[in-house]
Amino acid sequence: MKIVVDAMGSDAQPRPDVAGAVAAAREYDLAVTLVGDQARVEEELAQHATGGLALEVVNAPEWVTMDDKPGQVGRTKPQSSMHVGMQLVRDGAADAFVSAGNTGAALAIATLHTLKRIRGIYRPALASIVSIQGNAVVLLDIGANAECKPEWLAQFGWMGSIYAERALGCASPRVGLLSNGEEVGKGTTLVQAAAELLEKDGVNFIGNVEPKEILSGAVDVAVMDGFAGNVFIKTLEAFGTTLFDLIRQELQNDWRSKLGGLLVRPAFRRVYRQVDPFEIGGAPLLGLNGVVIIGHGRSNTLAIKNAVRQARDAVQGQIVDTIRQYAPDVSNEE
Amino acid sequence: MKIVVDAMGSDAQPRPDVAGAVAAAREYDLAVTLVGDQARVEEELAQHATGGLALEVVNAPEWVTMDDKPGQVGRTKPQSSMHVGMQLVRDGAADAFVSAGNTGAALAIATLHTLKRIRGIYRPALASIVSIQGNAVVLLDIGANAECKPEWLAQFGWMGSIYAERALGCASPRVGLLSNGEEVGKGTTLVQAAAELLEKDGVNFIGNVEPKEILSGAVDVAVMDGFAGNVFIKTLEAFGTTLFDLIRQELQNDWRSKLGGLLVRPAFRRVYRQVDPFEIGGAPLLGLNGVVIIGHGRSNTLAIKNAVRQARDAVQGQIVDTIRQYAPDVSNEE
Repeated sequence: MKIVVDAMGSDAQPRPDVAGAVAAAREYDLAVTLVGDQARVEEELAQHATGGLALEVVNAPEWVTMDDKPGQVGRTKPQSSMHVGMQLVRDGAADAFVSAGNTGAALAIATLHTLKRIRGIYRPALASIVSIQGNAVVLLDIGANAECKPEWLAQFGWMGSIYAERALGCASPRVGLLSNGEEVGKGTTLVQAAAELLEKDGVNFIGNVEPKEILSGAVDVAVMDGFAGNVFIKTLEAFGTTLFDLIRQELQNDWRSKLGGLLVRPAFRRVYRQVDPFEIGGAPLLGLNGVVIIGHGRSNTLAIKNAVRQARDAVQGQIVDTIRQYAPDVSNEE
Repeated sequence: MKIVVDAMGSDAQPRPDVAGAVAAAREYDLAVTLVGDQARVEEELAQHATGGLALEVVNAPEWVTMDDKPGQVGRTKPQSSMHVGMQLVRDGAADAFVSAGNTGAALAIATLHTLKRIRGIYRPALASIVSIQGNAVVLLDIGANAECKPEWLAQFGWMGSIYAERALGCASPRVGLLSNGEEVGKGTTLVQAAAELLEKDGVNFIGNVEPKEILSGAVDVAVMDGFAGNVFIKTLEAFGTTLFDLIRQELQNDWRSKLGGLLVRPAFRRVYRQVDPFEIGGAPLLGLNGVVIIGHGRSNTLAIKNAVRQARDAVQGQIVDTIRQYAPDVSNEE
């Protein structure tokens, strides 16, 4: 198996990207191709002991930044590391692509220029794996499609189910549909129509769920439109940061809190690890003709390494072929 | 000023409802009317020293439960404490209504049966006041309207702005519109159209915001449709609970954590207080011909008392009259 890693993806590129790729090649015994500015990547590689590792570098003279417009960068930077890396997967020279770069750009380059959607898939979905208290939940869509149709949500449901089963090893994944509390509204027309489709779709659909059910592990897959999903995931991130900052501040407040703070530090690290996005890996793009995993821009070496492992698991689980089997025999809707 | 408190609202009714009403009458020097099953309310009142307080009881033989269907309960239980209480406000016998009961039922009874919408208001909004690190932010809509039109969101913007200014004392409230990250999608068509309207609407509109800006206090009012708002607020609640549970567990893990846990307890209480919904009060319903504040079902005495204070502040700030002044001179859209 060969995994392509975008050397120019993370905010601190190419350092964590290269270090994570090297660590993954060693730890998982994988062939890894680093794509990026050849000179910079090789300079960075020289900092590592790489003897015996199946590492290669493919030159890509351009790279995508967080400021690049997703809809344009496929045309304005056709030799970006993302573009070249995904081409390697498209052409069968590699099995998966990992990047900690601009998510919107990766989605556009994949969908419009390189890997393209699997036949019959209406829209690719950006998924996120949230793991709290040991329960891994596949959330999708978390931002690729702000406005969705019911059929798209239903596809997200079975694509997420395939991912949970084949990449995460979850038997008969329970699929829930994010809805607002029944005590106030009754779900949007979109949610109602999607629920009807999911009932008939052959997945293990357990019905509508609220955020607390997602966080308590009552589902293995949570389906949502990309707007609500983006709000959900960003609220988790923002509130986690806010709470940990508050706790840190309050533990500096007086001698008693300071002393206690020293003592509880290991307990806190354990809590933090259980909710820290870095531990979970990257966001898979589902519905494309190839495995693509997008990491956080602020990914460190560990996060990149984990994203490579995630890509390996998706390749071993034959996610792409399995989605192909389930996709309806229709041409892609535009 | 006279505030009506639903004695039969909270999960543990009538105990916290009556206790909170008594505490509010004493602390804020208000006239308070308790509406509910007369015998039960008077029995509960007898537990308190009420000498010198302006308290009265109005009998309402029925009450709404969390299982009652919001759309039907106005007809099936026309003598519920919610119904009777809102009628008192509608008829000018009181200035505001406070309940910790079924939010959807309160909305339906207010909109369809008693207070009705202010002329020119498309839809009433359910607002929530979130206060983190000392910044109070008015969020609306958090669940009254799962599907919205751009004009409704624009009205939520200026209704929220009026509330922030006149009930919370915030000068020139900064209004933001919840959107998904620009790095992936570009906001829904709804968000785009609402942003255009808010630009022209005379409020201090600072543009689109993400959850982290809401939590960091970059806005005083955050506008959103009721589906996204419900997801946002419930994600905060669920993640807060999850994190505090995790911390509690980990602090029981070994002697070092246990000892540290004892020492950091006061610091933790301060953190908890800063993010605890009870401290913030209830959810105002905006756009009705009367002040209505809905508390959490699990409200305790303090929460009820705070909700009464919030109702008083809204009455003193002349929220209803001010919204009336700004409402367009059109009949209500159905």
